[in-house]
Amino acid sequence: MRIIGIDPGTSVTGIGIVEQRNEKIYLIHYDSISLNSKESLPVRLKKIYDECLICIKKFKPDEFAIETAFYGKNIQSTLKLGQARGVAIIAALNCNLNISEYSPREVKKSVTGSGASSKEHVQYMVKSILSLRERVIEIDSSDALAVALCHFYCRQNVFHNGNSKIKNNSWKFFIEQNPGRIKK
Amino acid sequence: MRIIGIDPGTSVTGIGIVEQRNEKIYLIHYDSISLNSKESLPVRLKKIYDECLICIKKFKPDEFAIETAFYGKNIQSTLKLGQARGVAIIAALNCNLNISEYSPREVKKSVTGSGASSKEHVQYMVKSILSLRERVIEIDSSDALAVALCHFYCRQNVFHNGNSKIKNNSWKFFIEQNPGRIKK
Repeated sequence: MRIIGIDPGTSVTGIGIVEQRNEKIYLIHYDSISLNSKESLPVRLKKIYDECLICIKKFKPDEFAIETAFYGKNIQSTLKLGQARGVAIIAALNCNLNISEYSPREVKKSVTGSGASSKEHVQYMVKSILSLRERVIEIDSSDALAVALCHFYCRQNVFHNGNSKIKNNSWKFFIEQNPGRIKK
Repeated sequence: MRIIGIDPGTSVTGIGIVEQRNEKIYLIHYDSISLNSKESLPVRLKKIYDECLICIKKFKPDEFAIETAFYGKNIQSTLKLGQARGVAIIAALNCNLNISEYSPREVKKSVTGSGASSKEHVQYMVKSILSLRERVIEIDSSDALAVALCHFYCRQNVFHNGNSKIKNNSWKFFIEQNPGRIKK
């Protein structure tokens, strides 16, 4: 199973893709979409949409996980973040992927064991889990990989604190959960 | 010239389309996308995207105008509104439309003459301008029509207070503005 994790933002949007093989997790891809603040918001949103779509079509993930917003930010940042999130979610939905959402606290807890960890601690653990200690990874990419890992742990029930908001809306997931409701 | 106006929201998203013929403005279409609050956010976002896309493909507008957020709302509403805005903007960009953004104050001022008008006053004036006095129109649809009318007045220079943020990002617009830069 391949999972794409997204850490959305209108300055930088992180993308991370991991794959589960024989109960182990491996890195497939990571990237940071850097967005020029001098460009208009529609141009930046289109770039996020296009890059997400390219990644999904190229790496063909089975599941899509995204970080929910941190409400402590100011209202203008929240509006911008909302737009970036909406655009990334639509790119995934247009490729028929399930959408799962995790709070920053859940993501941190899943990879470090503490919901209050620093970004550097999250990055250290992501590198450790995926055996990438030698690599230089941007913080937005490691955050996105952490979102993907969080979804992997939730699916595996290795990590589950009862607050996870796995929202699967696709017909594929519905049929998986309700095989008796298919008319033959 | 045909203009589509959008009043985005995750409860109801209003759509309004007007057309300019011989310096006059006519109604083409209006609609309200009602979104079930019991459905998950991705399902609602997909509905906004799909309905915007259907409308754009059916009525083939030349320009796209959208209301900017009202920052007085609470932070959770702002995040949801941001997501709805992002999704509507991406639907337009995927159809190669120019994006123009107007604040609620600009929209109100363009149709009523005052930036502090009530929604009912905006609706009354929209109905009057478009000769729709007998029709029952939902407030979200009349708001969307007001956004489209605001863009029409800005384009016509009938209304211009210097704060309008017309952001045209398409090649079509660039070529219109810079005919001398086309290599023949």
